[in-house]
Amino acid sequence: MLIEGKHHRTIWPGEDGRTARIIDQTLLPHEFVIRELGDLESAAIAIETMQVRGAPLIGAAAAYGVALAMLADPSDEGLEAAIARLGRTRPTAVNLRWALDAMRNLLGNQPRERRAALAIERAAAICDEDVAICRAIGEHGLPLIEKAAAEKKPGEPVNILTHCNAGWLATIDRGTATAPIYAAQEKGIPVHVWVDETRPRNQGAALTAYELLHQGVPHTVIADNVGGHLMQHGMVDLCIVGTDRTTRTGDVCNKIGTYLKALAAHDNGVPFYVALPSTTIDWTIEDGVKEVPIEQRAAEEVTVIAGRTADGRLEKVRLTPEGSPAANYAFDVTPARLVTALITERGTAEASATGLAELFPSKR
Amino acid sequence: MLIEGKHHRTIWPGEDGRTARIIDQTLLPHEFVIRELGDLESAAIAIETMQVRGAPLIGAAAAYGVALAMLADPSDEGLEAAIARLGRTRPTAVNLRWALDAMRNLLGNQPRERRAALAIERAAAICDEDVAICRAIGEHGLPLIEKAAAEKKPGEPVNILTHCNAGWLATIDRGTATAPIYAAQEKGIPVHVWVDETRPRNQGAALTAYELLHQGVPHTVIADNVGGHLMQHGMVDLCIVGTDRTTRTGDVCNKIGTYLKALAAHDNGVPFYVALPSTTIDWTIEDGVKEVPIEQRAAEEVTVIAGRTADGRLEKVRLTPEGSPAANYAFDVTPARLVTALITERGTAEASATGLAELFPSKR
Repeated sequence: MLIEGKHHRTIWPGEDGRTARIIDQTLLPHEFVIRELGDLESAAIAIETMQVRGAPLIGAAAAYGVALAMLADPSDEGLEAAIARLGRTRPTAVNLRWALDAMRNLLGNQPRERRAALAIERAAAICDEDVAICRAIGEHGLPLIEKAAAEKKPGEPVNILTHCNAGWLATIDRGTATAPIYAAQEKGIPVHVWVDETRPRNQGAALTAYELLHQGVPHTVIADNVGGHLMQHGMVDLCIVGTDRTTRTGDVCNKIGTYLKALAAHDNGVPFYVALPSTTIDWTIEDGVKEVPIEQRAAEEVTVIAGRTADGRLEKVRLTPEGSPAANYAFDVTPARLVTALITERGTAEASATGLAELFPSKR
Repeated sequence: MLIEGKHHRTIWPGEDGRTARIIDQTLLPHEFVIRELGDLESAAIAIETMQVRGAPLIGAAAAYGVALAMLADPSDEGLEAAIARLGRTRPTAVNLRWALDAMRNLLGNQPRERRAALAIERAAAICDEDVAICRAIGEHGLPLIEKAAAEKKPGEPVNILTHCNAGWLATIDRGTATAPIYAAQEKGIPVHVWVDETRPRNQGAALTAYELLHQGVPHTVIADNVGGHLMQHGMVDLCIVGTDRTTRTGDVCNKIGTYLKALAAHDNGVPFYVALPSTTIDWTIEDGVKEVPIEQRAAEEVTVIAGRTADGRLEKVRLTPEGSPAANYAFDVTPARLVTALITERGTAEASATGLAELFPSKR
């Protein structure tokens, strides 16, 4: 997607063939900084500290992490240590595990001297596949926006609410939840996006707003508390969110607060769509609320916030009284009954075991 | 309530009899500063800028504002101008209007020379009445916490979720939603409060956490997105929130985001209580969602946040990209069907026209 009019992916190989490059998302929207990942540890830290985040991008970064590890130590022990290190970075994202499994399957039976080159090639292929997947999600989601547009007066925008960032910045390009929005923009359909700021890390206010701004998509940032009110008053035509893990039954584990928006959508008859690459489907899990482990992150993400001062400095400020504890559950699970449809690279599916099995019969 | 062990109300008359004193809540939880209100305009600005906020405290501050105006100009024109100025400060709070009507009714037929003294006396009486009301709300709400405690293992705390600040700092003392919690604490019932930070103004993180901390009530600050997850996992026994305006049919207009928590409570079978002085009931309104005007505040409250830096300075930082608009709806309406019961100074009532009419037969 575009930044200042220039096209960027979120991760790409360095020209030296021994590094990868990322956009440091912890500095957005205030500073645009490209960082070099030179070894396994820098890739692991980039995932842990959320310099890269978003399920598909985490997967791609993990793949590059394995590749960088293979440059340093292509032994079986090196491979397993890299997979173990990267696997610990974010417990909830299922396609982190998917990417690591893919790398193990690819490299396990290869001679050591070929592993680094193969791994770099595969990491690049994972990125290209992700772009194709996001493009397909956009094409399958577009008719849902076109349907809403058909019910509008001419020129009146379709109002879409999204939570967190399941955009370009969460993937390699185009995004998952944003892919249908960008597809609609390309077709000239007027859209307006309500951007949940998405506390505590504010991925909506910082990242989704940033990418929509640079793409020229009209949008408005709102506190996470606002969506219910908007839906009560007919100001949201549809919701589209992403997911970090989807169960085989269609339960959706996504950024904390998604469940609350799904409840409001259901209460007001607003369609609630979830966009996902099939790599985020966990075919082993039946009951999302009971079975998906929910990552708890540092309390400091709630009690302290970073931003830019009026004179341009990046500064962290404390929001809570010293002495008040905070809890930081990073995800919640939206039961399938609240999800209108899943938008995948193969098409849209009912959020149910049957719906998913029809699209992905080999997984049944 | 206590600050550093010393008892404070949120508003009180100056010893000179010509001023009022308030705690400047815009500086909490970082700085505890007492400000003097010396005239009508300072009272109006204190309400507008939310140095004082919370429905009952706004009413009391408006009463003092009329009293300060009467000291300067006790004419009929002075009275009406004061009421008009104060009436414009916050459109949603119904007991702002109630307090202004009370002052007009009291002063309208009085000779000018007596108006200032009568107004000061009445403002003080409004404060005392509010303390008595909050105490009564606490007594009527206490059995709901005792009931939840009876289902717990010995020593296990009752987990109560609250949104925004309907505490001591929103009233004169003890609070509305917090009154039953303080009553439970006084009876030795172990409680733990989940404090919604309540974006965009963070009254939960800044004010509710501050007062619970100083009262010694165990609590944990959470992002507004978290409550649904907690309720799905049995980590909330009941919710208690306040209200800025309640319709005669039991719809509850409260801080933006309340509706989302009520939906989650309903979806998970968690009781959702609303604590209110009857002065917040608007007996003229039937349908809260359709009829209550929702205040929109400055976008800057969403895009910029204030806090304390590590070296102790108060600083404002920008959270969103320059160029991204924001919207700031301050309240939403929770339909009566989602409210388990209303806790008033006269007892608990079903959230319905019938329920309220039984408690307040003269209003029917």
